[in-house]
Amino acid sequence: MYAAPSIQKLLDELERLPGVGPKSAQRIAYWILNADKATALRLAEAIAEVKDQVRFCERCFNYAEDDLCEICRSPKRDAGVICVVSEPRDIPPIERTAVYDGVYHVLGGALSPLEGIGPDNLRIAELMKRLASEEVREVVLATNPNVEGETTAAYLARLIKPLGIRVTRPASGLPVGGDLEFADEVTLGRALEGRREV
Amino acid sequence: MYAAPSIQKLLDELERLPGVGPKSAQRIAYWILNADKATALRLAEAIAEVKDQVRFCERCFNYAEDDLCEICRSPKRDAGVICVVSEPRDIPPIERTAVYDGVYHVLGGALSPLEGIGPDNLRIAELMKRLASEEVREVVLATNPNVEGETTAAYLARLIKPLGIRVTRPASGLPVGGDLEFADEVTLGRALEGRREV
Repeated sequence: MYAAPSIQKLLDELERLPGVGPKSAQRIAYWILNADKATALRLAEAIAEVKDQVRFCERCFNYAEDDLCEICRSPKRDAGVICVVSEPRDIPPIERTAVYDGVYHVLGGALSPLEGIGPDNLRIAELMKRLASEEVREVVLATNPNVEGETTAAYLARLIKPLGIRVTRPASGLPVGGDLEFADEVTLGRALEGRREV
Repeated sequence: MYAAPSIQKLLDELERLPGVGPKSAQRIAYWILNADKATALRLAEAIAEVKDQVRFCERCFNYAEDDLCEICRSPKRDAGVICVVSEPRDIPPIERTAVYDGVYHVLGGALSPLEGIGPDNLRIAELMKRLASEEVREVVLATNPNVEGETTAAYLARLIKPLGIRVTRPASGLPVGGDLEFADEVTLGRALEGRREV
């Protein structure tokens, strides 16, 4: 296919992005070519800025622009409750619920013997250090509800419970707005086990 | 939703892109955050470079990195045949067919009385100047096969035919690999009118 070298280079870089195939790369490239220069450069700068300014929070390993992330720095957050997640991307969905006001700890993955990811590859030592030095009443294990996430949660529960800290896990059950008819049996089983008085 | 300011800014800019909604913007942003710095900066630089280096070809108004685009500069192209298209993005699909070795002329749109786009808003005067000064044997009117494109082609045909230059238009007909059963009646009608000896 013919394209000016700088356009071809842009197409190549765009196609690396997740969910962007050759067709969408082309749509985006022509959008950038047609956009006024300031608009296009704002995108370029936003990419450069994020790589320049974003690092890991020293306490919880969430993305941060300072030594500590905004959640760790906030005086409104309850530092006595730590929600453990696999990745920084798991934090925004929890924040959006607006029902959680504790802090976080990002493991950087989940246990997976198959992929050779053991406890030493995750930020578990850092979590245990926090539990030893901070006044923590509860740890919410919000790893993913899949094999790796459940394994990680079970592993962490065994480590943390002896410290006399409450260990919880978000309820498994039927998604709100979903159809009982279409629920898989594992989810429905969990929902029944976890049934609550109304 | 919580996100560090520079991440939020990146999300905002990504969501402007065509075909990128909030979910894909988030996927792309986390990909950029996870990518090594060099990879992410290559994308930023490709965007800046394209805005810096790409302009319009002085002859055909295709995207170009010099005064003339690569097609106009190529000695292998037959300058006696000009293919007229609406936008630069119409050129790569034609090039990919590898059956066309003439040059191009980009109108910058199509006639549309509804949107107030008349002949003066397109690069028609520039085309007529080329036809007067260059040795052109044929003009292929490859505007889109829709109302605006057909109107534009009809308008140009009326202007160009009196100059004694051959004016053609790509055949309308059944898409290769398509099902006759599912062809719309206009396309099928055109295909029958344009039937050829086998």
